[in-house]
Amino acid sequence: MSLNPFPETGQLRHMSMDELTELAAECRRTIIEQVSRNGGHLASNLGCVELTLALHRVFDIKKSPIIFDVGHQCYTHKLLTGRSGAFQKLRQCDGCSGFPSPAESEWDAAVGGHAGTALSTALGIGAARELAGNSDKVIAVVGDGACSNGITFEALNTCKAGGKNLLFILNDNEMSISPAVGALSAQLSKIISGRFYNKTRNAVRRNVKLWPKLHRFVRYIEDRLKSALLPPSAIFQSFGFRFLGPVDGHSLPELVSMLEKIKELEGPLLLHVVTRKGKGAYYAENAPEIYHGVGKFAADDGKLMPASEGFSAVLGKWMCKKAERDERIIGVSAAMIPGVGLSCFSEKFPQRCFDTGIAEEHAAVFAAGMAVAGKRPVCALYATFAQRALDCIYHDAVLGRVPVIFVLDRAGAVPDGPTHHGIYDLGFLRSLPGLVVMMPRNERELEMMLEHALEINGPVVIRYPRGGSKEKALPEPGPLETGKCEVLKESPEGPVIWALGAECGIAEKVVEILEKEKIAATLINIRFAAPFDRETALKFASRLQVVIEDHGIGGAGSALAEILSGIPGSRMAVFNWGKEIVGHGNVDILRKKHRLTPEDIAGEIMKILS
Amino acid sequence: MSLNPFPETGQLRHMSMDELTELAAECRRTIIEQVSRNGGHLASNLGCVELTLALHRVFDIKKSPIIFDVGHQCYTHKLLTGRSGAFQKLRQCDGCSGFPSPAESEWDAAVGGHAGTALSTALGIGAARELAGNSDKVIAVVGDGACSNGITFEALNTCKAGGKNLLFILNDNEMSISPAVGALSAQLSKIISGRFYNKTRNAVRRNVKLWPKLHRFVRYIEDRLKSALLPPSAIFQSFGFRFLGPVDGHSLPELVSMLEKIKELEGPLLLHVVTRKGKGAYYAENAPEIYHGVGKFAADDGKLMPASEGFSAVLGKWMCKKAERDERIIGVSAAMIPGVGLSCFSEKFPQRCFDTGIAEEHAAVFAAGMAVAGKRPVCALYATFAQRALDCIYHDAVLGRVPVIFVLDRAGAVPDGPTHHGIYDLGFLRSLPGLVVMMPRNERELEMMLEHALEINGPVVIRYPRGGSKEKALPEPGPLETGKCEVLKESPEGPVIWALGAECGIAEKVVEILEKEKIAATLINIRFAAPFDRETALKFASRLQVVIEDHGIGGAGSALAEILSGIPGSRMAVFNWGKEIVGHGNVDILRKKHRLTPEDIAGEIMKILS
Repeated sequence: MSLNPFPETGQLRHMSMDELTELAAECRRTIIEQVSRNGGHLASNLGCVELTLALHRVFDIKKSPIIFDVGHQCYTHKLLTGRSGAFQKLRQCDGCSGFPSPAESEWDAAVGGHAGTALSTALGIGAARELAGNSDKVIAVVGDGACSNGITFEALNTCKAGGKNLLFILNDNEMSISPAVGALSAQLSKIISGRFYNKTRNAVRRNVKLWPKLHRFVRYIEDRLKSALLPPSAIFQSFGFRFLGPVDGHSLPELVSMLEKIKELEGPLLLHVVTRKGKGAYYAENAPEIYHGVGKFAADDGKLMPASEGFSAVLGKWMCKKAERDERIIGVSAAMIPGVGLSCFSEKFPQRCFDTGIAEEHAAVFAAGMAVAGKRPVCALYATFAQRALDCIYHDAVLGRVPVIFVLDRAGAVPDGPTHHGIYDLGFLRSLPGLVVMMPRNERELEMMLEHALEINGPVVIRYPRGGSKEKALPEPGPLETGKCEVLKESPEGPVIWALGAECGIAEKVVEILEKEKIAATLINIRFAAPFDRETALKFASRLQVVIEDHGIGGAGSALAEILSGIPGSRMAVFNWGKEIVGHGNVDILRKKHRLTPEDIAGEIMKILS
Repeated sequence: MSLNPFPETGQLRHMSMDELTELAAECRRTIIEQVSRNGGHLASNLGCVELTLALHRVFDIKKSPIIFDVGHQCYTHKLLTGRSGAFQKLRQCDGCSGFPSPAESEWDAAVGGHAGTALSTALGIGAARELAGNSDKVIAVVGDGACSNGITFEALNTCKAGGKNLLFILNDNEMSISPAVGALSAQLSKIISGRFYNKTRNAVRRNVKLWPKLHRFVRYIEDRLKSALLPPSAIFQSFGFRFLGPVDGHSLPELVSMLEKIKELEGPLLLHVVTRKGKGAYYAENAPEIYHGVGKFAADDGKLMPASEGFSAVLGKWMCKKAERDERIIGVSAAMIPGVGLSCFSEKFPQRCFDTGIAEEHAAVFAAGMAVAGKRPVCALYATFAQRALDCIYHDAVLGRVPVIFVLDRAGAVPDGPTHHGIYDLGFLRSLPGLVVMMPRNERELEMMLEHALEINGPVVIRYPRGGSKEKALPEPGPLETGKCEVLKESPEGPVIWALGAECGIAEKVVEILEKEKIAATLINIRFAAPFDRETALKFASRLQVVIEDHGIGGAGSALAEILSGIPGSRMAVFNWGKEIVGHGNVDILRKKHRLTPEDIAGEIMKILS
């Protein structure tokens, strides 16, 4: 059904427009088929097919690398660069990843995954080339949503350094992940219907001919009029860009002809390309925020596999319920309102739900400002993107003991791979003075932790993984006390197993396996990664203590090690993702690779005990 | 000599313009006197005296809080809000801190220290007030330099949320810390000499009267003409701001009259105030980047106490020397070129030294881009500000194994206090896959580490504290090997003391004290916080192991604890800043408070051994 082998990038320059159009259709079919089978980023990739084909046709991509901002639009690029085979196993451990990765292919110049970095990377490459006297273009493809990210602005502001070689493609789909917010976005839409400018200009020109004295002055105005009536180009022009477009991003002839012209121009150049997210799959065009990052679905009608309830849904429900009685409750997120489960809240309380665009830092500080003024904001981010806001959590919430509840969703390993794992934040967060860091073991405990967080007059982090509880038969959570763990099962001897958050479900299975081998074990729900329950740790100091956590080093395992290292005779073992780069793919398979299944862990514990 | 008590904020509204002018002079005298005695931020504070007085005169600051971006311009505010006494001990442990601090005074609404957060905080407070129907102004004072920071842009882009109450004061001193870079800054200077616009407008108005048919159209153009000819206001206006000014920021009558008018307007408002950094001290006016953050100096002629050579100077010299023979060497910093010691490099190699403005994230990613293109960039930041770039170090350097050398200066406790200590980054950095993290014990070892970093084909972090070595008589550093410590002194028994970086000097003294008590000790220079030397740690597993580090929890102490926690019978103790907030003031006094002097540490070791 699909072309195999796919045409490679070098062949595109010999193809006719009809053949390119057919190739675009084939790319779409392949993308829809693979994403429907494996999950992935649908809407953003369908929006970028023609643009990517046109770039590969006009430029030698080895010499003129494409830096994809956020990286969630690189599928067509992958299909054209030797990975159409690996694409059949998209996002599987032995297939290709869903994001640009220099480790995967020399055709990917830079990592993509977090927003806002493409322009900086391209300017860096450009600056190096300027020094070497190399004038090959460096291409940054940036969605309008990613333009709301501060790093893009920082790069725009200094684009003189490295800008000569720069082609900045502004992929304007009026949509980042949820509809783009912000002034810049609002103005971009003005350009598209910028006919008023053209009419006005013509009227002025006609009239001026009648009155020669004004001629030179009006020419002067005219130059500036363009930027005045078309504010976004004014913004970009004022940063020193030559602004080109808009071009229909689904018309291959328009794109190719424009890019051919651009090839000869000196940068910094900005090409404004208007695309439609989800193009070619009606369900994704109609609801691109739903078909942004998806699990498996039916390729014909887009019917999604039912999502389990899980932690995100519980957050949303709790917010809705709580907000009715407590007007201090506020929701803040960074272009992730649906992903973190706040869609219902934003519909019910539109005045109290703030979407900052892809701007995690502003989201964190804005939430802190609201808390300073007496609100109780819940700032919900994906853990991996919250890494952007670590300094703000410290500077704007921790130092002033400002009571923001930071909720980090997708905290743990995820199928998207290295750019998206939420497994590196605990080492920093755990070290901050007075910051309480909790992880619930199941949905009920999340509710309890949210309630508990409201009672703490200071900043709190609540982290949980994608999905929900992994428990089978653990008891209902008991009452919470800051810095106290929950002993789920106590045996008078044998190993003491500490599990962080939803890993309690894994630990439960470990205990079962050990019991079959006649090894009684104690099972503890850590609850507080910080402050860690020192007292309970010391109580069991003479026994083997084991930590299971969905995190790299520096997390709960280190917290327990710090406590026990002062105690002669204590001994512990930690099961986490360690310090290697964790790949992409089904998390259960990743667990197998890293020897983190219940069987692996139980086996290892028995080895240590024997 | 100085007014004591100082007039308080509430009294200002009853003072005449002459009295206010006299008060401004008195504020300047006090600031110069105290900063010359205690060190502090001179130029930025002298530039803001009249602006602060005018704000306190016109607004009730309890109701209309002033959020100072970066916080290094709040001295006058402190003098007016009950802290003129504490100001006599500026930056001393028992005096007032140099930055806004809600813990210090209820007049400080938010923490300030890192750039770019004031607008977000003010919008957060504003949004909360809008919900409560409160229309008191919230005032953000932001320097033009801080406008180059991405968070400011993220906030500008969504200023509809919370903007009704906002008064954004753009303190334009054409200078952030080193001269501001970037497009925005360049354009601000155009406004100041914006007479062309006024002339043009008048010419158009005169002519249009002669030709009524064009009248309506020209009015339409005129509105937009303003933004076209005055690009920065165009930028801000396009974000939805009402742009007011420029006002002379050293004219109290102009400031007061403008602020009185503004009081009644609805936001978001932007008032453009032009000030001069260092105003009132000729040496600071002439060289504001030198008098930004200073140590003690002579108040009459500004003569600075001679700075010791130290780590920063060694970095600069090494860069200059190396760059002559290796054209891959590039310098990148974020508005900190002089502070990190790169002034000489930037003069000698202006094409190869990049200042991104106060934009640590862009600096890190830009450096990564240059490394992708074959350069070997050294990206030098202050450790505390590098917290902004933690995600970029991960996403853009670590994941692609991109060989950037990140140099974190001022890593450790500093006199400026909580907002500026560089003691929280190791927990995160240490957990990143493949990232090498080094700390040199003296200046010679820094050179060696820089050379070593060049040989590593991947990202490297080199951290060091303000100043230089604290050693007295330790041997010359021996050759470096990644992941291997340096044993400086080995004894066959007794405690094993691991010291990180310049703490080797402290550890040297600890060993001396122990030897006087007939306790032989082994002294180890850790060198690599990551990867930590597991082999040596295990070699000494049966002895008491001690870690001394200028960091909070999560650093080298945790690294050793992780290794030893699996070894029954091992025992260790860690001496670091722990998890409390570390205050401001002389670092030696802070060490005493936290029981981290050589005497304290030696005493504690003897206690454990006995």
